[in-house]
Amino acid sequence: MENFFIDLRVNYKDTDRMGVVYYSNYLVWFEICRTEYFRSLGYPYVDLERKKIFLPVLESYCRYKSSLTYDDEARVYLTAVEIKGIKLTFKCEVENKRTNQIAASGYTKHVFIDQNNKPIKIPVEILKLIR
Amino acid sequence: MENFFIDLRVNYKDTDRMGVVYYSNYLVWFEICRTEYFRSLGYPYVDLERKKIFLPVLESYCRYKSSLTYDDEARVYLTAVEIKGIKLTFKCEVENKRTNQIAASGYTKHVFIDQNNKPIKIPVEILKLIR
Amino acid sequence: MENFFIDLRVNYKDTDRMGVVYYSNYLVWFEICRTEYFRSLGYPYVDLERKKIFLPVLESYCRYKSSLTYDDEARVYLTAVEIKGIKLTFKCEVENKRTNQIAASGYTKHVFIDQNNKPIKIPVEILKLIR
Amino acid sequence: MENFFIDLRVNYKDTDRMGVVYYSNYLVWFEICRTEYFRSLGYPYVDLERKKIFLPVLESYCRYKSSLTYDDEARVYLTAVEIKGIKLTFKCEVENKRTNQIAASGYTKHVFIDQNNKPIKIPVEILKLIR
Repeated sequence: MENFFIDLRVNYKDTDRMGVVYYSNYLVWFEICRTEYFRSLGYPYVDLERKKIFLPVLESYCRYKSSLTYDDEARVYLTAVEIKGIKLTFKCEVENKRTNQIAASGYTKHVFIDQNNKPIKIPVEILKLIR
Repeated sequence: MENFFIDLRVNYKDTDRMGVVYYSNYLVWFEICRTEYFRSLGYPYVDLERKKIFLPVLESYCRYKSSLTYDDEARVYLTAVEIKGIKLTFKCEVENKRTNQIAASGYTKHVFIDQNNKPIKIPVEILKLIR
Repeated sequence: MENFFIDLRVNYKDTDRMGVVYYSNYLVWFEICRTEYFRSLGYPYVDLERKKIFLPVLESYCRYKSSLTYDDEARVYLTAVEIKGIKLTFKCEVENKRTNQIAASGYTKHVFIDQNNKPIKIPVEILKLIR
Repeated sequence: MENFFIDLRVNYKDTDRMGVVYYSNYLVWFEICRTEYFRSLGYPYVDLERKKIFLPVLESYCRYKSSLTYDDEARVYLTAVEIKGIKLTFKCEVENKRTNQIAASGYTKHVFIDQNNKPIKIPVEILKLIR
């Protein structure tokens, strides 16, 4: 898999009184990166939801390595998409674009569900696109 | 109308790199105060939504007078509920509990809508409770 | 003054259970638009802060006209910068890029302060750039 | 260690368009729980920061088990504080107060740092209080 990434700018709201990006915001960025990854595959996540297929988060993990401050430019990489049975794991890494330092890395684990909240197999067309 | 209020504690996420509460968060507090006000009337807002009646915001205004910092205790007052035709205005004021200084004051203007997004009259039972 | 604008995509975190952008988030977008406007003038806001000059918000106002939903693309226009004495008002308008409908319009009013929180005149170089 | 907990109410801003609490918000609740735990020990976190001692997050993990919706009441338990060398791990669990179902569980790992961002030993007085 080729690296996929998105670029973001740290805005005022993202920072806390330590002057750095508040730790929960990295999970928001992971989500934006996932969304844009699905779009890049030609299968926007919003279209999945229109078909009443959802991809809730089962687990999230993040390791904070260096901090990002106001107006910093960040690059969020999707470094891997791992499939195990019906579960999908998206690994992400956030880089400070100016210094190339890793700010954070982590993952989110998911399962597709239908409109009755029942876990379902990864849709074949999605599976093909990811592979 | 008697003053209605709620108490809140400024948490880390609320602050920005200036060390103070980020300006959009006051609108969130106004909403929490509205919600608790409806509950205090014996008519939780969530019950309105169950009846497919919603109360979206038409306008918001806030004047920022002094800042609140991490771990400050704030009191959010609902100082008035004004009714004009089918529109409702909730006036709020945020006070620093320790210093009694006003941190912010403002209002939100609303209209009740049905499930087709059509503006409707203020439900009579709500009107009675507010008055 | 020419119109200045930025483009944004509505992400999951921006939405609430009504399925639309939560009302306080428009103020965050206004702030991002101001920031990028200063950058476009050749005077990034972060450089002002390095000189210990800050631009806190005195007032905010927003009128909500139509809603934006998940994955919508929004264009945030800075429609005017008004100067009155030492105060600056930034007027903004948010447009749904697909439908060209106005989602929200509003303003934020500011004053420059120094590191002792004292209001100061609008720095001459800023004044020139804005005009 | 006795269980420590705080009670929270899910507000509109916490929810997303799926109608449930957005996944990054649990980390905010973990932080509020940590803060109140320090206060309960008689050592508010804000006092640590006044002494130029900080407790940034090194890692966060959360497992999402069931969802919470608007107006739900949640109880956030601090189930354990583990100490390994200079590192501290706070384990948390979020419960739906009405159903007693676990909504999420996770942890955050931390290290104390001084004003030069240097990791330091856990202050003795803190260590005593935790034990």
